[in-house]
Amino acid sequence: MLNFAKAEYQTRLKKTKQSMEKQGINVLLITDPANISYLTGFNAWSFYVHQLLIVIDQEEEPIWAGRRIDASAAQITTWLSNENILPYSDDHVQSTRKHPMDFVAGILKEKGQSNKTIAAEFDAYYFTARNYIQLTQQLPDATFVDGTTLVNWIRIIKSEQEIEYIKRAATIVTETMYKGIDRIQAGVRECDVVADIFHKQISGTEEFGGDYTSIVPLLPSGEKTSACHLTWTDEVYKEGDPVILELAGCHKRYHSPLARTLVIGKPTSEMEELADVTIEGIEAALDIIKPGVTCEEVELAWKRSIEKRGFEKESRLGYSTGLNYPPDWGEHTASLRSGDQTVLQPNMVFHMIPGIWMDTYGIEISETFRVTESGVEVLANVDRKLFIK
Amino acid sequence: MLNFAKAEYQTRLKKTKQSMEKQGINVLLITDPANISYLTGFNAWSFYVHQLLIVIDQEEEPIWAGRRIDASAAQITTWLSNENILPYSDDHVQSTRKHPMDFVAGILKEKGQSNKTIAAEFDAYYFTARNYIQLTQQLPDATFVDGTTLVNWIRIIKSEQEIEYIKRAATIVTETMYKGIDRIQAGVRECDVVADIFHKQISGTEEFGGDYTSIVPLLPSGEKTSACHLTWTDEVYKEGDPVILELAGCHKRYHSPLARTLVIGKPTSEMEELADVTIEGIEAALDIIKPGVTCEEVELAWKRSIEKRGFEKESRLGYSTGLNYPPDWGEHTASLRSGDQTVLQPNMVFHMIPGIWMDTYGIEISETFRVTESGVEVLANVDRKLFIK
Repeated sequence: MLNFAKAEYQTRLKKTKQSMEKQGINVLLITDPANISYLTGFNAWSFYVHQLLIVIDQEEEPIWAGRRIDASAAQITTWLSNENILPYSDDHVQSTRKHPMDFVAGILKEKGQSNKTIAAEFDAYYFTARNYIQLTQQLPDATFVDGTTLVNWIRIIKSEQEIEYIKRAATIVTETMYKGIDRIQAGVRECDVVADIFHKQISGTEEFGGDYTSIVPLLPSGEKTSACHLTWTDEVYKEGDPVILELAGCHKRYHSPLARTLVIGKPTSEMEELADVTIEGIEAALDIIKPGVTCEEVELAWKRSIEKRGFEKESRLGYSTGLNYPPDWGEHTASLRSGDQTVLQPNMVFHMIPGIWMDTYGIEISETFRVTESGVEVLANVDRKLFIK
Repeated sequence: MLNFAKAEYQTRLKKTKQSMEKQGINVLLITDPANISYLTGFNAWSFYVHQLLIVIDQEEEPIWAGRRIDASAAQITTWLSNENILPYSDDHVQSTRKHPMDFVAGILKEKGQSNKTIAAEFDAYYFTARNYIQLTQQLPDATFVDGTTLVNWIRIIKSEQEIEYIKRAATIVTETMYKGIDRIQAGVRECDVVADIFHKQISGTEEFGGDYTSIVPLLPSGEKTSACHLTWTDEVYKEGDPVILELAGCHKRYHSPLARTLVIGKPTSEMEELADVTIEGIEAALDIIKPGVTCEEVELAWKRSIEKRGFEKESRLGYSTGLNYPPDWGEHTASLRSGDQTVLQPNMVFHMIPGIWMDTYGIEISETFRVTESGVEVLANVDRKLFIK
């Protein structure tokens, strides 16, 4: 069931250990489900209980530690050998009696790591304050350091196989976006449109299926378009409503996000202008992308473009994306924003999402792009315009 | 856009403050999205960045603290006044320069709370180790204590309006389960069945729409039924495959989960026996449920029933459910398991999920139930049997 050749996982692990060595880290505790999956293939919806991957500098193979009923998922979906799949008993689950980190501390003691430099992803999803408190209490001789995004930064440059999965996701999002735009009209319930969107996302194409996306479709309508992370309701669309569609295609956990805006009926001239400004800004930013350019230079091209038209946007212009699990499809590494001097390299993938939100409406028109050897490749294939229904 | 009368939110807040007072807590920092929603109505997919609700014992209204572009979601979906919606600037987002908890510490200082007893949900989703480290560094004179599940325990008894939403979710899950069972057959791709399941979950019924569920549908097939939290693939079902369907209906963020198992073709006699044992065990457990019975007594009735047939199950039999956000639809309070002496009371709602997983196959047949004044009400309406296709 592995989605990549075992050699690719080994390369990723090797890079992880190199990064650990540079930072003087002996043990890395990984809770971000995308990082666990990246290194081992692990793929199950079991991140709602504590689970983690333990990478020890002196040991060839990482250790998966998780709930007993999830050990078979590790056996089925990863390349790890059975003796490195270490389950804890069920009385550790959401319990005040036993905590899974006590189990993890026990493993580290047994492996002779209790006085080493141990990094954990301090600011990653699912590495809670309680995890930190338990581990530091149980391992008083260890030195704890922050390993947040250590693996994420290795993920930022994609392999050919990863790009292939992301392109399949882009095909899915292209078809899904047109399906959503096609279905929206006055008198139709929001939930019925979103149901069709989900259907297309998950069924995918005849050649390959879809996977769940790490963020559900976001479809604010009317004045709610001023709020970018609302989902949907069971109200019907009304004549004159603007509707934002932000959604992704996903294949084998790899994402291609995309946003478009439409208006049911006649857009106001303000909305038309805002869409124009946004599209001009996207194009100005895309124009300068090639290896060697920095993230902040891309954002600056956008900013200069919209400033000429009298607009500004405080929030970042975009972020690295790819392999992800809920609640986010962003990779938490490079962002297209002022101060981010990450240098673009081939096979980085970003979601550039220039949203501008006014008091009572907003516009989002986005693209996911790959940095190529000489420039940029936009992945989805949806008209870049304000859609009118 | 509130889903409940403002008075209901006020009652919830009052109970929260009473619980804080009993535990000597002056300030409660809430990150669990379900708890934030429970107290304020807040409903957006913005929990992928740091956001929290600050309840101060001496202040009437809580404070929402989150990313600037999500402040309008707080204005639209909550009953909070504008001056209690405090946004941080975008350079705090997934950044190594500024952390949102520095912003939160600033609020607490300004409100004169920096030397008080501050509880945070140490083991809740999205309260990271980094949050804890930043807050304790910024507020050295405060006493930090663990407030995990303080609000969750208030959520355990549902109001009539909450029960109504859960019953709508049960109607959705009933129709969805039959749709999934109907669509599964040899030669059909797993992703195409799951697409139809999503469609039904989200469109809901003609009277009310569906919401996204906090866990996606889990549909392991074949030998993968030995692993309970696998999702789906784009492979086709094969003759003889067992398939587990664990999924929920959701309405306005309230869940009714349900699991069933089917076999494509003729089940083995071992599978038939395991299904019989499971159903007998569920019925033995349901039989004793009424107010006054403890959670561990319910589990014991199940355990005795299956032990008579020579089976055992280590994992808990079930858990409280209701209002939830990804990654879990469980409430993290009472569990149906040995040692849990929570006394059942009317309008508690549990998902009883007796799964038994063998080395190469498994059976899950579950029910979500409400404790009534005198007994139990099973919420969904799906035949309790091993389905044969």
